[in-house]
Amino acid sequence: MNTLIGCPAETEWHENRVALTPEVVTRLRRSGLDVLVETGAGRSACFADEAYVAAGARIAVRTEVFAQADILTVIHRPDCERLRSGQLVIGLLNPDHAPEELEAVTALSFEGLPRTLSRAQAMDVLTSQANVAGYKAAVLAADTFGGFFPMMMTAAGTVRPAKVLVLGGGVAGLQAIGTARRLGALVTGYDVRAAARADIASTGAAVLDLDVTAEGEGGYARTLTADEQAAQQRAMADAIRDFDVVITTAQVPGHRPPLLVPDAALAGMAPGSVVVDLAAGPLGGNVAGSVPDGRTETGNGVVVLGAGNLPAQVPRAASSAWARNVAALLEYLIHDGSVVLDPDDEITGGLLVRSKEAVS
Amino acid sequence: MNTLIGCPAETEWHENRVALTPEVVTRLRRSGLDVLVETGAGRSACFADEAYVAAGARIAVRTEVFAQADILTVIHRPDCERLRSGQLVIGLLNPDHAPEELEAVTALSFEGLPRTLSRAQAMDVLTSQANVAGYKAAVLAADTFGGFFPMMMTAAGTVRPAKVLVLGGGVAGLQAIGTARRLGALVTGYDVRAAARADIASTGAAVLDLDVTAEGEGGYARTLTADEQAAQQRAMADAIRDFDVVITTAQVPGHRPPLLVPDAALAGMAPGSVVVDLAAGPLGGNVAGSVPDGRTETGNGVVVLGAGNLPAQVPRAASSAWARNVAALLEYLIHDGSVVLDPDDEITGGLLVRSKEAVS
Repeated sequence: MNTLIGCPAETEWHENRVALTPEVVTRLRRSGLDVLVETGAGRSACFADEAYVAAGARIAVRTEVFAQADILTVIHRPDCERLRSGQLVIGLLNPDHAPEELEAVTALSFEGLPRTLSRAQAMDVLTSQANVAGYKAAVLAADTFGGFFPMMMTAAGTVRPAKVLVLGGGVAGLQAIGTARRLGALVTGYDVRAAARADIASTGAAVLDLDVTAEGEGGYARTLTADEQAAQQRAMADAIRDFDVVITTAQVPGHRPPLLVPDAALAGMAPGSVVVDLAAGPLGGNVAGSVPDGRTETGNGVVVLGAGNLPAQVPRAASSAWARNVAALLEYLIHDGSVVLDPDDEITGGLLVRSKEAVS
Repeated sequence: MNTLIGCPAETEWHENRVALTPEVVTRLRRSGLDVLVETGAGRSACFADEAYVAAGARIAVRTEVFAQADILTVIHRPDCERLRSGQLVIGLLNPDHAPEELEAVTALSFEGLPRTLSRAQAMDVLTSQANVAGYKAAVLAADTFGGFFPMMMTAAGTVRPAKVLVLGGGVAGLQAIGTARRLGALVTGYDVRAAARADIASTGAAVLDLDVTAEGEGGYARTLTADEQAAQQRAMADAIRDFDVVITTAQVPGHRPPLLVPDAALAGMAPGSVVVDLAAGPLGGNVAGSVPDGRTETGNGVVVLGAGNLPAQVPRAASSAWARNVAALLEYLIHDGSVVLDPDDEITGGLLVRSKEAVS
């Protein structure tokens, strides 16, 4: 019997993505795998059950997907009481949280992917989803802002382009910069890492220099000292007045996101300015007073959008990218129709949350 | 005493624009005019009372603005019982509706502007607002669509760009085409007028040919015969399946907008497709079932956005453009500090709703 890949529907609030798409079902079928998709799993991402069936998947209710699948592919950690011993679960499983829930299964969690490894990059959901988030942040900002992004030359005169500041020059920041530039905005980028500043400059955007440098591990920035952070916040409050739109993307894994735009900075911005906080989450965000998934307005008329889960709002693009990442991983793991997990392999070892028997 | 220009707040539901901006107040003051702005008139467009005062305007309550102004500049027809005999009112006044309301005043209504006249173009609010609407339509469509507009090349593969169809190659259509192309979409345009088809082609977009030609008066298309319209709808239903996003902009002055996207066309579109209807209004729209200012979803998952008043949703840009149009008109009409209305002048004659005594 072929190895069976199961794809349940995501159940988190406002999560519209799905971990497999019809395109990838076709690809997995070609690799000799069977696929079982939960009824309606792709509906919010606009992939109909019929499209999965046409691609060669079977459709089943949730109980069957969990009961039958050898491998479950998910976005977030699923209802773990349904997992069967020996099952392989692949997703962004947040392994540090309640690890006992995953004890019965073999869990591969994308947080552990060695992202700097070139052959891992096709599997990197963090990158693919950050790319979606950066694109959406710029489009959302343009749709929220009451002016034009591009310069407009009309019979009645010329309108200057919007000035956009993007904080953080990682994947999300660079894509936000690129998208805002596509729309014709004047874009400036900022990062505490010298390498990221060079990446920003390479897009053609201006680079804001606040005289703070803080390289960290794994390509992330290190946490600033209290003095450095205070100095950065003061300099930012000064620089930010000039901008119509600010997009913040600064995250430090496992820590509260750094506060880059304090109240004093918001207070200096013009009414109608828009601030999009991609780091907004339960631990806080990059922007004072930002609310996860919420819109707030300051007393001086600045709109702050808490936007920590933007990929779920571009579900077709985000799911397509995610499913391709999963397919790349499965194709890497599967030999002669069976999954072989080698804990000494750099990729597998990084992903493995808890080593159990390999799934056959 | 200088001529006094009054700018009341707009009171229509969801109208965020204002007919004067601080930038234009400065310009009018330089021309020797005084300006009176209603308290809070610019707030929804993010122009604070303080900004008008800094530009040289006075701020007053509504009653005073109507009582004191020699010239009132508005977007929509105001509460006419407040108008004083002899006052000059400038706006988009919809003069065919209840003309007796405007009998006591001198009304200049932008609907009558000879738009093809080159020196009238700086005053053309229909063009400037259509330009805003076209831009916003593309941005709104991008923000609503669940996929990317641009092609994306990533480690996990390439994503094709979104396919966008724009119906109508007037100002709004051309700006929608330009903005969707900026964002990286593959854009096709359609118009029944040969000249507009040439304009579409000049932007670099593809041109859809449904074999229908219908030039009309004043640059608008003529109404199609029933047979022509049925043929167009059948051909459209066939062509439209290929597109992810459709933006419709076809209006015929004084008539119900033509139905370009019938139910049969919507039924053929893929789930997740987005249709933005810029003609949606009380008389109907270009799209079957579109609701003014509303979002509906068809049974097959196509999102239809009724978007007949998009300029009000980009209030800063729309108000800035409008105010510049008003300034161009006032500068044309004012000689030695006084308004001189010459009914035989091509522009003035076109704008004049009902000739009363000239305002001094």
